[in-house]
Amino acid sequence: MQIVKDEGPITGEQIAEKLNLTRATLRPDLAILTMAGFLDARPRVGYFYVGKTANQLFVEHVRKLKVKDYKSRPVVVTEELSVYDAICTMFLEDVGTLFVVKDGGRLAGVVSRKDLLKIALGKQDLQAIPVSVVMTRMPNIITCSQEDTLYEAASKLMRNQVDALPVVRPMEDGEGLEVVGRITKTTITKAFVELGQESVL
Amino acid sequence: MQIVKDEGPITGEQIAEKLNLTRATLRPDLAILTMAGFLDARPRVGYFYVGKTANQLFVEHVRKLKVKDYKSRPVVVTEELSVYDAICTMFLEDVGTLFVVKDGGRLAGVVSRKDLLKIALGKQDLQAIPVSVVMTRMPNIITCSQEDTLYEAASKLMRNQVDALPVVRPMEDGEGLEVVGRITKTTITKAFVELGQESVL
Repeated sequence: MQIVKDEGPITGEQIAEKLNLTRATLRPDLAILTMAGFLDARPRVGYFYVGKTANQLFVEHVRKLKVKDYKSRPVVVTEELSVYDAICTMFLEDVGTLFVVKDGGRLAGVVSRKDLLKIALGKQDLQAIPVSVVMTRMPNIITCSQEDTLYEAASKLMRNQVDALPVVRPMEDGEGLEVVGRITKTTITKAFVELGQESVL
Repeated sequence: MQIVKDEGPITGEQIAEKLNLTRATLRPDLAILTMAGFLDARPRVGYFYVGKTANQLFVEHVRKLKVKDYKSRPVVVTEELSVYDAICTMFLEDVGTLFVVKDGGRLAGVVSRKDLLKIALGKQDLQAIPVSVVMTRMPNIITCSQEDTLYEAASKLMRNQVDALPVVRPMEDGEGLEVVGRITKTTITKAFVELGQESVL
């Protein structure tokens, strides 16, 4: 492995020469190292060091998870909905974040439990205030796309201190974003639990 | 590997015999399989199958993380605090869950943003209602302890559909539980991000 690490790509014959062994003696060892994922071999090129430690394989495994496989259904409302009805919608749909859309699906805002709690503190008539007053608006909305990794989405949740991201794609007319899913801290917690139970028989 | 799996513990000589090979020919292969963690060897016993696939190592890695290494500071309030002040405390402390204590630290309840939003919907005077009216009470509180794994805590969050768990230990007088930390979906999301970046250089 050290030889391949230092001098790869290198052929089996060259390695055998360096070790004063025959190619035939070496073959099974190289086969095992390749099977185990430490080395890789390419025809007419030779062996090269892949260098995947268990830890690197692990990181790759985490980063392989995709938003599109974990996203849940988005709950959308329109801008005119009252704060009161928005809170009711959250309870009925059992979500902590609503996505506000206009023009038949274009993302306009995001409203969280935190936004609604803040306005509820104000002793105003919650039925008279539209969610558009309290929502976070484009272009300040942190989004992700279906092809993103779950790792990228989780990093965004942490970095931007939000509880949920809308999963979006460009609208068909090219203007703005369509909401096609949601990724929340609950999604990530669920994925974490799956990682911890994956091969349990 | 199949031989060791089926018949282990088995000595190198016995394996060599089965394969019609000499012990010397086999030795380097066994050494590599042992190094790679697929087999283990004990003197005078022989080789046995450890059976740790990359996936199993991975699961073990996730399950090694402990609550005590990830818990954050709990934010505690007393039962008499008004709902209004509880909401303010949440904003000031930037948390989504408060733990309610009595008798100098004994866990009495848990109050979430969801609990507070529900009461805020009722058009009552939020300054006149104590949090004890809206909180989840003992013994219905889902808790975890410092020695639990993060995996167990995450599983509890999912299974019980809560956003946070108080990390508790028995009170010194033996009656009830003292709150020493909190684990939330944010904690788990942070741990997930760490898993995905661990060996990045």
